[in-house]
Amino acid sequence: MGSSKIKFFKVLCHSSESGVKARVGRITTGHSEFETPVFMPVGTLGNVKAVTNRDLYDLEAGIILGNTYHLYLKPGNDIMSEAGGLHNFMNWKGSLLTDSGGFQVYSLASLKKVEADGVRFSSHIDGSKHFFSPGNVIRTQRIIGADIIMPLDECLPYPSSRKQTEASVDRTVRWEKDCLSAFNETESLYGHNQELFCIVQGSTFKESRKRCIEEIPLKDFSGCAIGGLAVGEKNEIMYDITDYCTDYLLVDKPRYLMGVGTPADILESVERGIDMFDCVIPTRNARHGRIFTTNGEINIKNAKYSRNFNLIDTECLTYTSANFSFAYLRHLFMSREMLAAQLASIHNLGFYLKLMKDIRKAVRENNFKSFKENFLEKYKSNNKK
Amino acid sequence: MGSSKIKFFKVLCHSSESGVKARVGRITTGHSEFETPVFMPVGTLGNVKAVTNRDLYDLEAGIILGNTYHLYLKPGNDIMSEAGGLHNFMNWKGSLLTDSGGFQVYSLASLKKVEADGVRFSSHIDGSKHFFSPGNVIRTQRIIGADIIMPLDECLPYPSSRKQTEASVDRTVRWEKDCLSAFNETESLYGHNQELFCIVQGSTFKESRKRCIEEIPLKDFSGCAIGGLAVGEKNEIMYDITDYCTDYLLVDKPRYLMGVGTPADILESVERGIDMFDCVIPTRNARHGRIFTTNGEINIKNAKYSRNFNLIDTECLTYTSANFSFAYLRHLFMSREMLAAQLASIHNLGFYLKLMKDIRKAVRENNFKSFKENFLEKYKSNNKK
Repeated sequence: MGSSKIKFFKVLCHSSESGVKARVGRITTGHSEFETPVFMPVGTLGNVKAVTNRDLYDLEAGIILGNTYHLYLKPGNDIMSEAGGLHNFMNWKGSLLTDSGGFQVYSLASLKKVEADGVRFSSHIDGSKHFFSPGNVIRTQRIIGADIIMPLDECLPYPSSRKQTEASVDRTVRWEKDCLSAFNETESLYGHNQELFCIVQGSTFKESRKRCIEEIPLKDFSGCAIGGLAVGEKNEIMYDITDYCTDYLLVDKPRYLMGVGTPADILESVERGIDMFDCVIPTRNARHGRIFTTNGEINIKNAKYSRNFNLIDTECLTYTSANFSFAYLRHLFMSREMLAAQLASIHNLGFYLKLMKDIRKAVRENNFKSFKENFLEKYKSNNKK
Repeated sequence: MGSSKIKFFKVLCHSSESGVKARVGRITTGHSEFETPVFMPVGTLGNVKAVTNRDLYDLEAGIILGNTYHLYLKPGNDIMSEAGGLHNFMNWKGSLLTDSGGFQVYSLASLKKVEADGVRFSSHIDGSKHFFSPGNVIRTQRIIGADIIMPLDECLPYPSSRKQTEASVDRTVRWEKDCLSAFNETESLYGHNQELFCIVQGSTFKESRKRCIEEIPLKDFSGCAIGGLAVGEKNEIMYDITDYCTDYLLVDKPRYLMGVGTPADILESVERGIDMFDCVIPTRNARHGRIFTTNGEINIKNAKYSRNFNLIDTECLTYTSANFSFAYLRHLFMSREMLAAQLASIHNLGFYLKLMKDIRKAVRENNFKSFKENFLEKYKSNNKK
């Protein structure tokens, strides 16, 4: 087990561009090997909405997310355990990461109450009462069996006061240490290694972020996430806090900016040293007809696309963009056909994963800055029209 | 054009079993070649609901349907024409068949009124007023550009009186002759051949069916459909009328039983000489969690499947059944995930297309009767449990 921890993450190269903290790395789990910076499609309930595993393999998605809160409620730990974990249950051959469930408790559950030892809540589905503690979120994630798992933290809303934040950082640090103990006292149930990350909280206060980083035993975790951002604060604040945090994080562990973000957010955050991203934007926007193209994000329902018989993107070729026109995809959306969401989701995920591939290439070739500028200039041009 | 008509359909072999009118044939269009008896997945609005073209190619679907009524309303003839027809619009490389739109007028539109020269109706979408005539349904189908097109007919509800039926047969025969004229006076718009079928009506009256067959110039059409069945009458009546009609239809033209049906219906109708089928059952049932398996149709939402981690069918292997368990598919349905409908639709279509393949093999090997009995015995066993 010791040697596999060493191999879990390897930095392959650092950008040598001035002011660019980007790096290319490689993560190896018991299920797959993939390079960072990586975007992880969100598979909340044991599937990426509207997208088959086959599509995900085609898109070369090396890792996807599951949400512990959702999976704990449905199908529940008993069925998940009998299924032999989420990889088996959904027949996913790549890597999986699960969050602790904490974030969804704060954002979805009703009657939630943060207590000293965890968080009490009522299910958003049926109102049933539950309690997440550091010990039981680790136990649940052992049952789900993701390759990368997260500790219980408290994610504050924005804005939060300095006082709230300090109390919250205390709690988060204590919970994460308890998660680490629970993790070390238990074992993977299905024969493959699981890696526990830590999460840095501290809202938008640099002092709180720094204290959180100092009090978490970073080296005992396989990677470090930055949580509590992209919760309503301005982009500039998010970039600034991210930049601040990565200066203090360990170089040889992957850094994961949770829940981020737009293509621009990803580019800015890679520049500031982030290796891992997850976000519902590509798939959620897809279901609403918002399509990412190299010329910007478009609303395919717009009447101006009704007679546009060109392929929707000739530079970012996915199954969708290589085969179908603006007019056809619009027709599917206007006709409320399920295939609209399917094709749009495949394309948007393909767009994100191609972006990450291009980013890694640019970092390797030490031209990340110009890549970012060119990408954004083109990407934003459509929005100005 | 003359020689392509000859090649359009070829009977490859007739069953030599006593009382079995089944045959294996081959249809060749400008887009694909496929064997009959064939099942044609329904692609109402320019897509088979929840299924990508890629999935359809994987399933070896040689031909799919489009619905003229729906496509005429959305995206409409102007856009369809600018797109260069439905093959181009939806980027479908196989064959297409379109109905005339008549059936949907009777079943979907509001304020419909059958007149001497066609049918007047209001769109079910926005109430706009339209008129379908023999001439304009052919014109619309020239614009859609399907390989096989259908004439305007009147599809009576069940039951209908003899008197209603006779008047309706008069109208249908007149309209079909007008469609033939309109067809002969126009040309394919996109360079590939289009084949016009006729449709036999006559409700459940054999005399009316016979008169309809006698009055339609069968040899001037590329194939013949039997319409007005599967509209509420008992199965035995449907089988009996089908059996009666095929005795009078031309041997060297394909026979198409419109809108049929269940696996049992298909088996009984192949035995009675039918070559082509279309039905929404596999895809519609899929979206409601009703899955076809070699052991019968099941409701995957049933609690008894929640801990069944076996593959959903080990004998009919589709992408879905070869990869996912009852429990997982049930979980997707219970979680209202779109992927549930996608996976179920792929499987149900795969089940139907495999059934047709097995049917063709059995006909070729002159053991259709025992194949049918064995299939149905196994298929119905689950329903008895």
